[in-house]
Amino acid sequence: MTTKAYQKLEASFSEIIDLDRVIELLNWDQSVKMPASGATARAKQRSTMVKIKHQKLTAEDIPDLLNEAELHKENLSDWEQANLHEMRRYYNEASALPSDLLQALTYKAAECHTIWETARIDDDFQAIAPTFEELISLTKEKAAILSETSSSNLLYDALLDQFDAGSTYADIQPIFDELSVWLPNFLQNVLDNQQETIKLDRNIPADKQQELATWLLDKMGYHGRFDTSSHPFSIGRIGDVRITTRYHEDNFINYAVLCVMHEGGHGLYDMQLPKKWQSQPVGGALDISMAVHESQSMVWEMQIGHTQEFWNFITPKCSKVFEIDNDNPAWSAENLCATSNLVKADFIRVDADEVTYPLHILLRTKLEKALIEGNLSVKDLPDAWNDEMQKSLGIIPPTNRLGCLQDPHWYLGDFGYFPAYLLGAMNAAQIFDAMSHDIQGFNSKIENGDFNHVKEWLKINVHQHGCLHSPKELIKVATGKSLQVDIYKKHLTTRYLKA
Amino acid sequence: MTTKAYQKLEASFSEIIDLDRVIELLNWDQSVKMPASGATARAKQRSTMVKIKHQKLTAEDIPDLLNEAELHKENLSDWEQANLHEMRRYYNEASALPSDLLQALTYKAAECHTIWETARIDDDFQAIAPTFEELISLTKEKAAILSETSSSNLLYDALLDQFDAGSTYADIQPIFDELSVWLPNFLQNVLDNQQETIKLDRNIPADKQQELATWLLDKMGYHGRFDTSSHPFSIGRIGDVRITTRYHEDNFINYAVLCVMHEGGHGLYDMQLPKKWQSQPVGGALDISMAVHESQSMVWEMQIGHTQEFWNFITPKCSKVFEIDNDNPAWSAENLCATSNLVKADFIRVDADEVTYPLHILLRTKLEKALIEGNLSVKDLPDAWNDEMQKSLGIIPPTNRLGCLQDPHWYLGDFGYFPAYLLGAMNAAQIFDAMSHDIQGFNSKIENGDFNHVKEWLKINVHQHGCLHSPKELIKVATGKSLQVDIYKKHLTTRYLKA
Repeated sequence: MTTKAYQKLEASFSEIIDLDRVIELLNWDQSVKMPASGATARAKQRSTMVKIKHQKLTAEDIPDLLNEAELHKENLSDWEQANLHEMRRYYNEASALPSDLLQALTYKAAECHTIWETARIDDDFQAIAPTFEELISLTKEKAAILSETSSSNLLYDALLDQFDAGSTYADIQPIFDELSVWLPNFLQNVLDNQQETIKLDRNIPADKQQELATWLLDKMGYHGRFDTSSHPFSIGRIGDVRITTRYHEDNFINYAVLCVMHEGGHGLYDMQLPKKWQSQPVGGALDISMAVHESQSMVWEMQIGHTQEFWNFITPKCSKVFEIDNDNPAWSAENLCATSNLVKADFIRVDADEVTYPLHILLRTKLEKALIEGNLSVKDLPDAWNDEMQKSLGIIPPTNRLGCLQDPHWYLGDFGYFPAYLLGAMNAAQIFDAMSHDIQGFNSKIENGDFNHVKEWLKINVHQHGCLHSPKELIKVATGKSLQVDIYKKHLTTRYLKA
Repeated sequence: MTTKAYQKLEASFSEIIDLDRVIELLNWDQSVKMPASGATARAKQRSTMVKIKHQKLTAEDIPDLLNEAELHKENLSDWEQANLHEMRRYYNEASALPSDLLQALTYKAAECHTIWETARIDDDFQAIAPTFEELISLTKEKAAILSETSSSNLLYDALLDQFDAGSTYADIQPIFDELSVWLPNFLQNVLDNQQETIKLDRNIPADKQQELATWLLDKMGYHGRFDTSSHPFSIGRIGDVRITTRYHEDNFINYAVLCVMHEGGHGLYDMQLPKKWQSQPVGGALDISMAVHESQSMVWEMQIGHTQEFWNFITPKCSKVFEIDNDNPAWSAENLCATSNLVKADFIRVDADEVTYPLHILLRTKLEKALIEGNLSVKDLPDAWNDEMQKSLGIIPPTNRLGCLQDPHWYLGDFGYFPAYLLGAMNAAQIFDAMSHDIQGFNSKIENGDFNHVKEWLKINVHQHGCLHSPKELIKVATGKSLQVDIYKKHLTTRYLKA
């Protein structure tokens, strides 16, 4: 029942997906295996592959084929229609921006990122301000062009859409506003009632942490490569999925357990995608929605990985692999779990706990929207940042290094990315809520390390859908309702106040 | 002084070289790191990359640009002219064969190879004969088309040319004929005079062998990746070169030493190519000549790696890493060297020593030429093989598995490849001869593990030339004379009869 135009598109996009996989592999290899002396040649190889992909995506016959296939889309199955929708999105994204603007943006972002690396270390915001202003101005140009084909006239919406397709500020504003009011009080309440934990009295060598992590991934049902790299990440699809972590000898909880569960969650998503569609856009993870992809890592890391049941399961293995005395109170399941859940108002986002993390995101969302919409000038950014930190977390960064210079995103031109981190955490809470109701005896299954039902539930309700649904629909399909801020609030309250 | 047409070609071929590197990496990754479950998707990725490379090579503007650049090649430097010559060769190779013949060949070769895998194990030549006949017939079709643009009317020459550009049967025939007469008598002489060796009384675990091999590669001045794979190989250029080996606990000499020197020799060649030309065809190793590339591995493996001086250097390290008593006579430098030089008439080429190996090649060259020229029918191959074995090595294989079914080459459609192995060994002997005369105190340098002069000599006289010269010219440039069979014979005589 398919059409000729659609079939031709499938043939072309199958090659484009191959190029995507190859580009991923070039990056994986560079991070994990390549000698540093290969960097220049590798950068050139990657840029050639990206160029070829762009040429294939914008080949002369593609727009006509898309139009033709769309005209007769009633002849296509649901999956084919969704695939066609993804093809259209790929094409629009590749063809929307004029190549001179794209080049200028790429160049300016690279320049700004290089200056940022030094400016952050030197705590010198002035050094980056002029280049950053130019980058924002180019980003606004980009947003203006992308807005032309959208129904919203907010520049920021065009940027949000890049990382969470279909998402608008009007969608997230009520949720973010509600959390902006609720979270600071909640945080104070948590801090006032928080019990003390015992500090872990031993460093754990990387090879022992790796032994634990490998065992944990096997329990999760992850069966791809597992390597070490300076920044943890995941790549791949179906039969060849790869994840990495790094190790810190004084923090096995964050890196050998939680980060590994995070990347393992991404990996399981990629492993369990619909095999039949593996060489088509619709067969990918919902990369169009950072908020969905992050939910699949966070449901393991932030939901399961912070429960007492999980720590009851993993603690005996930690004791055995790390050779810890069973009666050492610092290494009890209770203390390890409490340590994983410690809340502290602090300056750095990536080190933040589950309660303060969303406040970091709300701050960044507010400020980046203001920068893009012209309501905040670059020179006022440091003060605005510090004001917001005091209002939400009650602390003021002593330096810009611990403030508005800490994250690379903006200085790489990535505006509109941050909200997905919070939406991902909320999606994860809602998915966990649905899953733990659906699976009988959920808590005791976690306590026994029997993750098979979790893996299967996520496969059926999320992974197997590929890109069949929009991000918003998928949450509804998986959990029976659209995103509910109350579920997230209830989760935080239960974990941090009723424990 | 370059021309516009030439500059455009450089831009296109720079992308083609990127694709070559990427295809190499896909293969490396599959052999060394990829989970087996990724094989199907990887095959598709590779075939897409090969297709894109073919499209780029045969793009509409390439023939006109080549013609235009060639018309004005007096405006180009020597390197640019050599680069243009390589571009022409790439293009002719890619465009010579009609795509339906190429497809038929690829398909038939894959089919034949699959049948061969089982037929070899079952020792069943009949099972493969019909498909093999079809493959030969397609190969003859290919050779006939390739012959059209050549001055030779011998089909076999068109196949030889693929693996050693410019080489014809008329070139190699006198050399091969001379060796066919000389070698069987020489072999008998060696066997009659060979001294006994003491069998090595210990197996060495793979990790200890790896420690030795890593140390040896460092001494050779090789600084790329070094991994394990089931079939040893090398890839890369300049800043990112990678080699592999495998380990056999009962044979550290062949795998942790000689195979590692072999691949390390390839690796040094690729590392020391002219950096300025790294993204152009002329900046590659002389891949057009297997006989040259193999000489760069064999000069280390077969020449240096079999000398008493080399074993005097490496034996103390072996004793230390393997924890061998110093007075164990089996593990003395003399016995290890003698073991590495043991000569025995046997059936399998890949396990053959330096004296019997060329006889295996002469046999294959004679038979494959006869198969292609129509002087030998497939059904008569097993008998012809066994007759030749008896004439040259004095033994008859008890099965075809140990006879004409042992090598994959023919069953993959690779005819014309074998002679390069012998020419490579001869080139290596001649290069070693020139080098050991040029470098003062050569033997004592080897004995001290001071390989820096070897690495430098090869860099200046071979590696830095890239594809500036033809294979035949390069041997002249490096050694001052064209290939001399006497140097090779003298080498064998000195090593095996005058030691």
